[in-house]
Amino acid sequence: MKRVLVEELQNCLGQTVTVEGWVLRMRRLSKVTFLLLRDRSGVVQAVLDPQLLKGQSLTAESVVKIRGVVQAEPRSKQGYELAAQEIEVMALADQLPFNINGEELNVPLDLALDHRVLSLRHTKTNAVFRIQAALVQAFQEFLNGHGFVQVFTPKLVASGTEGGTELFAVKYFEETAYLAQSPQFYKQMLVGAGFERVYEIGQVYRAEKHATTRHLNEYVSLDLEMGFIESEHDIMDLQNQLLASMFAAVEMNCPKELKVLGVQLPEVPQIPRVSLEEALGILQREYGKMHQDSDLDPEGERLLSQYVLEQTGSEFVYVTDYPWTKRPMYTMPKGEELTASFDLMFRGLEITTGGQRIHRHEALTANMRRKGLDPEDFTSYLGSFTLGMPPHGGLAIGLERLTAQIIGLGNVREASLFPRDRHRLEP
Amino acid sequence: MKRVLVEELQNCLGQTVTVEGWVLRMRRLSKVTFLLLRDRSGVVQAVLDPQLLKGQSLTAESVVKIRGVVQAEPRSKQGYELAAQEIEVMALADQLPFNINGEELNVPLDLALDHRVLSLRHTKTNAVFRIQAALVQAFQEFLNGHGFVQVFTPKLVASGTEGGTELFAVKYFEETAYLAQSPQFYKQMLVGAGFERVYEIGQVYRAEKHATTRHLNEYVSLDLEMGFIESEHDIMDLQNQLLASMFAAVEMNCPKELKVLGVQLPEVPQIPRVSLEEALGILQREYGKMHQDSDLDPEGERLLSQYVLEQTGSEFVYVTDYPWTKRPMYTMPKGEELTASFDLMFRGLEITTGGQRIHRHEALTANMRRKGLDPEDFTSYLGSFTLGMPPHGGLAIGLERLTAQIIGLGNVREASLFPRDRHRLEP
Repeated sequence: MKRVLVEELQNCLGQTVTVEGWVLRMRRLSKVTFLLLRDRSGVVQAVLDPQLLKGQSLTAESVVKIRGVVQAEPRSKQGYELAAQEIEVMALADQLPFNINGEELNVPLDLALDHRVLSLRHTKTNAVFRIQAALVQAFQEFLNGHGFVQVFTPKLVASGTEGGTELFAVKYFEETAYLAQSPQFYKQMLVGAGFERVYEIGQVYRAEKHATTRHLNEYVSLDLEMGFIESEHDIMDLQNQLLASMFAAVEMNCPKELKVLGVQLPEVPQIPRVSLEEALGILQREYGKMHQDSDLDPEGERLLSQYVLEQTGSEFVYVTDYPWTKRPMYTMPKGEELTASFDLMFRGLEITTGGQRIHRHEALTANMRRKGLDPEDFTSYLGSFTLGMPPHGGLAIGLERLTAQIIGLGNVREASLFPRDRHRLEP
Repeated sequence: MKRVLVEELQNCLGQTVTVEGWVLRMRRLSKVTFLLLRDRSGVVQAVLDPQLLKGQSLTAESVVKIRGVVQAEPRSKQGYELAAQEIEVMALADQLPFNINGEELNVPLDLALDHRVLSLRHTKTNAVFRIQAALVQAFQEFLNGHGFVQVFTPKLVASGTEGGTELFAVKYFEETAYLAQSPQFYKQMLVGAGFERVYEIGQVYRAEKHATTRHLNEYVSLDLEMGFIESEHDIMDLQNQLLASMFAAVEMNCPKELKVLGVQLPEVPQIPRVSLEEALGILQREYGKMHQDSDLDPEGERLLSQYVLEQTGSEFVYVTDYPWTKRPMYTMPKGEELTASFDLMFRGLEITTGGQRIHRHEALTANMRRKGLDPEDFTSYLGSFTLGMPPHGGLAIGLERLTAQIIGLGNVREASLFPRDRHRLEP
């Protein structure tokens, strides 16, 4: 008999059906057992005569197949339940390291990650990744609809994009390769290769030793790059539309998940654009906070977001015009000291970095030299710039950070199915 | 003035517009220059008075911005042309290593790959990757519509999925990690984590030393896995629908590209399913071809495809029931000697591998031992199987191979933007 999903049962009153899923919880009375069965679509209560088990043991989180009749039951949450006629244990679960049938998954993050298959079954944990998938899908749909082509570029590269620090080395036959820190060079080259607008969703790697709640050593980057722009403001304009479209899609596709997690999606207004210099001024004036360096530290990001929220109601703020010293060599300079660049802060955390790039060969070579880099180390990348490269720019959104900030997770690891950090390579 | 795409010009007759793009070709007469401008949407002819260039040089593949009036011109291909009033050279191209304005890109593959930004601008090369992107988009849309969740799993892993051969090693802080050969373990675990149906599109890595026209050391795998199946035939059934849907989408979204490449998309009929034993019998009987080993070699794949095409009209054929010795430890056994597995051949090349997996812990442990593997080496993966794992199976399609076979490319490298092989790490 064909399997029916739990969410379809409401249309099967009076019918005999077969459902399959996991045993979320059991309550055994003397003559009857109540069993909550969970599948990917929902939870249903089954009532069964313990005899049906024929002496087989049954544990929480075992996989079962139940045949039964869907019958009205006003006392159950859905208004119906499944009167079991037959039950088959497809896979018996051992003793669980922790329970997942409470409203909250109250276990330390490390334990939850050690037993990821179990913790992901919790409704709240599961919902995080359904929202994440909806975000990705909406990112793609928006860009597909705006002339972008999805591309796949190598993660095994001959050199770093930003000068060679924080790279993981790979033994590549007789040579050494590195894991790409970003698809930056490739997405620029593909703009120049005539695609004009490309995006890539893929893993990037940072061999950073520090362990914080905001960093992963492998994460998913939502990258885009577009040609024929006038300035970095074109990229910010596009991102405003993109984010609005992503949030609208999540609102529409994940009502259950948003409710379970108690998430209120942000509005995407005309996001304020504040130069870094202004931002540092605000922090000093409003909070007495001095920065040694002309950059925002995590506390600075939080305070600036708080200020902008209070002043404008926006949960987002662009910080623009970063100094030349703070941005990689491919960033378009703006005057002598600044660059045509931006970061996007969302609820106190940087989620996007972007800007306009240099598109003329001589300017790029000169900028490399000014940074103390040797153009000879970038021959293949630089070569593209002698073949006719349009003005262009782009951005990269950290998927796990975006997810974590939307949902209000305290640690970016909670927004990664199988996070990688200095101390975690498994599962 | 806002940029107009070339494809929009047909609606702009008589209007003054600005177009931006690359100089595909120039023909200089004494008083007038004909210039073909290419952008991502098409090609248009511009006519200009050489004086407009004010002595600036202009070369093929330079990036230009032209303002002019769209006027009817019966002698041009489109029926209109652009009468230029102003031209700006946005980026001047150097001497090109080869021309890309012929109907064919007649350059050796290695040279084309060395100058990838240029070769990708050729209409035919460009079309390959637009079709590839359409295939991926359709793969996603079909699966999104069938209850699958897109996931992202780590490519940095602690051990191999298939026993440790052909892995790239990565120095991971104080440890050694490896690049994942496939997301196999993770997609199975995510089925068990309650998602039931997951897919992933991502890079996989094979440290194979041999260089053939069919292998890449880094390629894109279209992976899916689903729970609550009855047998491997459910996976094949799903793939039939999936492929039909992907080809229909390409037909609809890429008419221009298919035409440029002269591609006839295959029909996806009820794809014949032939056991490996039958396949070897056919090869021996029809072609006098003996196999030492019970497996198909590349010639065997081609001949079998040829036979099936002649007999049934299908360009696809499933080869099923591979021997236990030929399949990885997670494959569901079928009797003593065989497995619930399949490969899909398309136009003579294997593009998909799939099957049902073992879902019970004791059976999996026993199968590992029978393969001479130590279950201790797979603790984290095996642990998932004690927590209630449903029957499940899945498949993986090689994206570059699928693309190459559809288009009739002779080398899988032609279906990779920046291929990686033993001798190529750049660009």
